[in-house]
Amino acid sequence: MSRNVTILGAGLVGSLLSIILKKRGYEVSVYERRPDMRAANMSAGKSINLAMSARGWKALDLAGLRADMEPLAIPMYGRYLHQPDGQTAFQPYSRHNEAIYSVSRGELNRKLMTLAEQHGASIHFEHKCHGVDVANNVVQLSHNGADKTIQADLLFGADGAFSALRTSYTHMNRVNCDQHYLEYGYKELTILPGATGEWLMEKNALHIWPRGKYMMIALPNTDGTFTCTMFMPFEGEVSFAKLNTPEDVHHLFDTQFADAKALMPTLIEDFFTNPTASLITTHIAPWHYKDMSALIGDAAHAIVPFYGQGMNAGFEDCTVLADLIDTHGNDWATILNKYDTARKPNGDAVAALALTNFVEMRDKVADSRFLERKKIEKELGNRFPDRFISVYEMVSFSHIPYNTAIQCIQAQDKLLERIMNEGDFFVNLAQSSFCDSLTTWVNEYHAAVQQLDFGKNATG
Amino acid sequence: MSRNVTILGAGLVGSLLSIILKKRGYEVSVYERRPDMRAANMSAGKSINLAMSARGWKALDLAGLRADMEPLAIPMYGRYLHQPDGQTAFQPYSRHNEAIYSVSRGELNRKLMTLAEQHGASIHFEHKCHGVDVANNVVQLSHNGADKTIQADLLFGADGAFSALRTSYTHMNRVNCDQHYLEYGYKELTILPGATGEWLMEKNALHIWPRGKYMMIALPNTDGTFTCTMFMPFEGEVSFAKLNTPEDVHHLFDTQFADAKALMPTLIEDFFTNPTASLITTHIAPWHYKDMSALIGDAAHAIVPFYGQGMNAGFEDCTVLADLIDTHGNDWATILNKYDTARKPNGDAVAALALTNFVEMRDKVADSRFLERKKIEKELGNRFPDRFISVYEMVSFSHIPYNTAIQCIQAQDKLLERIMNEGDFFVNLAQSSFCDSLTTWVNEYHAAVQQLDFGKNATG
Repeated sequence: MSRNVTILGAGLVGSLLSIILKKRGYEVSVYERRPDMRAANMSAGKSINLAMSARGWKALDLAGLRADMEPLAIPMYGRYLHQPDGQTAFQPYSRHNEAIYSVSRGELNRKLMTLAEQHGASIHFEHKCHGVDVANNVVQLSHNGADKTIQADLLFGADGAFSALRTSYTHMNRVNCDQHYLEYGYKELTILPGATGEWLMEKNALHIWPRGKYMMIALPNTDGTFTCTMFMPFEGEVSFAKLNTPEDVHHLFDTQFADAKALMPTLIEDFFTNPTASLITTHIAPWHYKDMSALIGDAAHAIVPFYGQGMNAGFEDCTVLADLIDTHGNDWATILNKYDTARKPNGDAVAALALTNFVEMRDKVADSRFLERKKIEKELGNRFPDRFISVYEMVSFSHIPYNTAIQCIQAQDKLLERIMNEGDFFVNLAQSSFCDSLTTWVNEYHAAVQQLDFGKNATG
Repeated sequence: MSRNVTILGAGLVGSLLSIILKKRGYEVSVYERRPDMRAANMSAGKSINLAMSARGWKALDLAGLRADMEPLAIPMYGRYLHQPDGQTAFQPYSRHNEAIYSVSRGELNRKLMTLAEQHGASIHFEHKCHGVDVANNVVQLSHNGADKTIQADLLFGADGAFSALRTSYTHMNRVNCDQHYLEYGYKELTILPGATGEWLMEKNALHIWPRGKYMMIALPNTDGTFTCTMFMPFEGEVSFAKLNTPEDVHHLFDTQFADAKALMPTLIEDFFTNPTASLITTHIAPWHYKDMSALIGDAAHAIVPFYGQGMNAGFEDCTVLADLIDTHGNDWATILNKYDTARKPNGDAVAALALTNFVEMRDKVADSRFLERKKIEKELGNRFPDRFISVYEMVSFSHIPYNTAIQCIQAQDKLLERIMNEGDFFVNLAQSSFCDSLTTWVNEYHAAVQQLDFGKNATG
């Protein structure tokens, strides 16, 4: 007998999951804390645009939503760097002209909600979950000022970094967890379009202003604007705490972001109206309770946004779960146990990758040795396509498990160090003895990592 | 104007804190989840006897309770090791015949509660705290099935590892925290007295049966019994999961704990009646909110019991706070800020020390190189009393900050390795050239650590 499913949260992951489960014949009720964002104006002035990559698209395929989203997704083929003196440079992400895609979070969420309802899921808005009696699967909600109790049959917590189900898990015996904030906050700012609605910077790129201890990024929107995000320490020499007056902000932007500032007529208003938001990483184990409930998406693994993988990782949780349902039918004890075992190491890995990429984005992308390495990685991919894929490509353009990607980092560091210690790579390539050594080194790298799981999915 | 104080938890730390604050003129109300343990029979069959050491006694002095407790405290001058073949050995804790003291948790708690009430604190039993609105200091309680809200003025969470105030802190922005369970559980067992009520093992020692991956300990009680605690993995080859029948338990005890088993007529009943409890370590930052609330004791730093420092650390939190009140009067913004700054590194340090000591107790105490090192440390303390104190002595017999003790470990490891690499220490002492080298090495160690804070307290 098929089970009734209760999902906490109608965000990206909760909505997608409800579609996947409806397609497999489950009854699905979703409880969402906020009002219906399709009716209300929901901008909190603290969104960071999504960067949809391979894992995200795969899940949209599963939901049948690719065709709807493609026209709204703007391909970004690389990083577009802006130096303080106005110099710029473009670093392609891939050797095959692959892109990650700028997508509006609101747009995607609204479409997923509507599709979920079209498939027959019911979404109950303005239902705040206070907690869950995990052992009995009883959900405590409040709605319109009144308390409401739901007896769940099969329960998913897709309710984000501050998940009520996650909090209830942490009160159980032998549950390990942590939450850690970066000492950095972020603030949403806007670059406006030209007079005829045109994009005033390169549209098909992710723009970065790397400044060592802080940085700004900008992603294109379909309306000609760019959503900018400033990442900066809360306290310290250059920090949000030091930016208290319009003069402070003008001074910073005049000296560090002059090219962007010229396109930001609402800078001062945006800066002092939009909140300074914080960035959290969470871990928890286990991710499930018996055959009764599980965490998914940010509720299981809230991560920082610097690899653009938050939504992609949450969507991949859904595809892994869908595969397990297709394999194990209605055996939810097995499904949830295998889901936990398969996904937890990958949730840990993507959290670590996201933290590491912050250093790369704000600091290393402007470093000449780093840029040289990126060029060499690209050439290695061309010469040894069956033996070398860069970690960035594994994460963004493949379905190789995150945990495998992270396990490759050390071996790739060793390989690239060997190569770069020989001097100029592209000069050396002219010597056949170097090319022979290169083949040997790449083969050694390949042998070192090939026992890892590069499988199409991580469900084993 | 003096403030009204609300304390969550009438355990050891909450009761002691209420006495300290009453003595300084504050009005104090304590809310305790459990019934009054002085009336009810409270044993949950999962207590681990307390080992009171210097920091604990100092706090009892502050409360004026030393004279009351001394007759009930049994000095333990060292570890008494029991090998599987029945061989035993005694390792003194200190070179000055110092002891740690076995104290009944229930006895101490009852005395502290009574003293708190005698000083004018009111203790409200069977009041369970559900959460705190931290920004407004509003405490949500339930009592006799009804909800109750309290507006706190100054609030302390002394409500243990699963503190409601701590949980409410974790829901605030930029609060970092973690909780981690050991893969080991523990179970309380009992060694009974002889026919005339006499102790059937050495009374003035902490007994240990180290068995590598698991261990049993026993601490003396005033009634001739010993409270034993078995620490063992939940799962695995030798584990609680494998001990399902009386035969399983008999077999383990016959082969590993035969000498103890002979003194445990209620072994099988105890084993299958008492729960298998778990062991948690928690961290959180910050420990306070403005001038309004703070965490203290296990609520701030729940630790595992292997250094016997849980209660001692919580009591030291109280003495540090008392010092700060005596210095800063009613300036609670300063008091709580300095308390947090001073104690948080020491809370982290004692948590780490406790985890490390588990390995020492269950495994290393039976190792000949470890025993040799302990003898050398004792001799170094005799020869260089102003320059060398072992970490164990710093933790148990001094008021040196835990964080200083942990910072000394690496330097002591280096010193002891140097000494032990020269061969038999006590033979080498006969050579004046070795003694000269020894003095040099100890002086180098002393120079390396003397910039650390060895002050009488950690409040700066």
